[in-house]
Amino acid sequence: MSLSLNQRTTKRWSVAEAVEGCVRHGLEAVGLWREEVAEQGLAESVKLVREAGLRVSSLCRGGFLTAPGDGAGRALDDNRRAIDEAAELGAACLVMVVGGLPGVKPGEPLPDAGVSRDLAGARGQVAEALEVLAPYAGERGVKLALEPLHPMYCADRAVLSTLAQAVDLCLPYPEEQVGVVVDTFHVWWDPRVFEEIARAGRRIASYQVCDFLQPLPADVLLGRGMMGDGVIDFPPITRAVAEAGYTGDVEVEIFNADVWAADPDEVVATMKRRYAQVVTATP
Amino acid sequence: MSLSLNQRTTKRWSVAEAVEGCVRHGLEAVGLWREEVAEQGLAESVKLVREAGLRVSSLCRGGFLTAPGDGAGRALDDNRRAIDEAAELGAACLVMVVGGLPGVKPGEPLPDAGVSRDLAGARGQVAEALEVLAPYAGERGVKLALEPLHPMYCADRAVLSTLAQAVDLCLPYPEEQVGVVVDTFHVWWDPRVFEEIARAGRRIASYQVCDFLQPLPADVLLGRGMMGDGVIDFPPITRAVAEAGYTGDVEVEIFNADVWAADPDEVVATMKRRYAQVVTATP
Repeated sequence: MSLSLNQRTTKRWSVAEAVEGCVRHGLEAVGLWREEVAEQGLAESVKLVREAGLRVSSLCRGGFLTAPGDGAGRALDDNRRAIDEAAELGAACLVMVVGGLPGVKPGEPLPDAGVSRDLAGARGQVAEALEVLAPYAGERGVKLALEPLHPMYCADRAVLSTLAQAVDLCLPYPEEQVGVVVDTFHVWWDPRVFEEIARAGRRIASYQVCDFLQPLPADVLLGRGMMGDGVIDFPPITRAVAEAGYTGDVEVEIFNADVWAADPDEVVATMKRRYAQVVTATP
Repeated sequence: MSLSLNQRTTKRWSVAEAVEGCVRHGLEAVGLWREEVAEQGLAESVKLVREAGLRVSSLCRGGFLTAPGDGAGRALDDNRRAIDEAAELGAACLVMVVGGLPGVKPGEPLPDAGVSRDLAGARGQVAEALEVLAPYAGERGVKLALEPLHPMYCADRAVLSTLAQAVDLCLPYPEEQVGVVVDTFHVWWDPRVFEEIARAGRRIASYQVCDFLQPLPADVLLGRGMMGDGVIDFPPITRAVAEAGYTGDVEVEIFNADVWAADPDEVVATMKRRYAQVVTATP
């Protein structure tokens, strides 16, 4: 396993800057985001990562499959485009944040009407969308990586709340089509996390790390911290992921106002140091 | 099942005022908190609930069993006192919030030193404390009610994060000694919640309801809302709890700045209306 910079950790950097930053700091892989790829241009982004000799450890992100009404069809179209982009970039996987309850917008107050509270229904909607998207991804050599999100995001970002759920959802498909993301922030609390990592086995398509801050900031989306700044004990999770057979890159993905305000080169230097000290350390 | 006011919902009310409020609004039960009982005086509180003919649906709360060093022994002593108080009050159960990682204080920033990140160890510490406290509770006719808290509180309030964990923890003890709390706020997201409610069966010692607000407020402890104001679909959970054999009271427990600022009598009136409309409604 080797370290990869998810470009959201250095939010100010464009794709070009993130690629240059990875090369400057001796990293072999980068995780990209669709918004930044679109700004840079897809063809230009492909050229930049190829010329730099970097692996694209993931493209973030597809998903949001639970929109009500016409939104469901538009979401499928958008996910097909995301799959195409991931194929172009040669990304190891397309990270899927599946979406919350129909009608609930991420981080926003509930609207007066049009919210569904049918959680089981929304979960079924995700499974149905996957039936359409998995073969499409398979034809293009792209692996969909289902990301269970921390249960505090269940209503507005992902009705996929546990690794067990994600593993169950991917098992009907070929291994190269659908896998799961293990993100320490989202799963560290789960009493079943070690059993589920073992059960996931080679279905683990991405291992992402960052810490869980205490207390959470006012915007809970930004509760992700630099490894060592929070409450997670990383080495047992890292060992379990390795023992499950994962040999891919380890992405550091931090959404955090202080990290975003800091000099990106210093952030990457700290990330490399903490990765060695905190994430891979043996007990 | 009948409706009970957990006195934290009307935070301004003393035990005397909460008891009067319950009588005034035709409620048969009240959930009390140790701090308020201490202010009123234990003997006086006992007298007030008896004279009013109210059931004490729960006493909140015991727990915080994961303190490091000498704190562990002090926690056991404090829990023995809580059990004694619950016995005096004739409470249906003593709610147990088991505590977070050793050295992490609820809602506070991490201290520079002295924090344990050994989550499995903390969970083991809870199981060990229960070995001491369950027989003590049994001798006094008190039922300990283990409350799994939402995973966002895992680090600072309760390493017990799922109903499955709570059920596993109580099964070695007699049914009258240790049970579980089903609190909609904490468990609504859990893909296994219906199976685990069924498995809990007569181990369900308390059913608490409130809604999960979207987005969460800056202090995530106050993300509990009046039923109908958030994202939870209550009737399926209420039916599952009833089908599991629970015939006790349904406590409404809301930590919420707006609810606390409102006139307590209006809060109780709204609570009664919403309970009928939102919690017990058939589909």
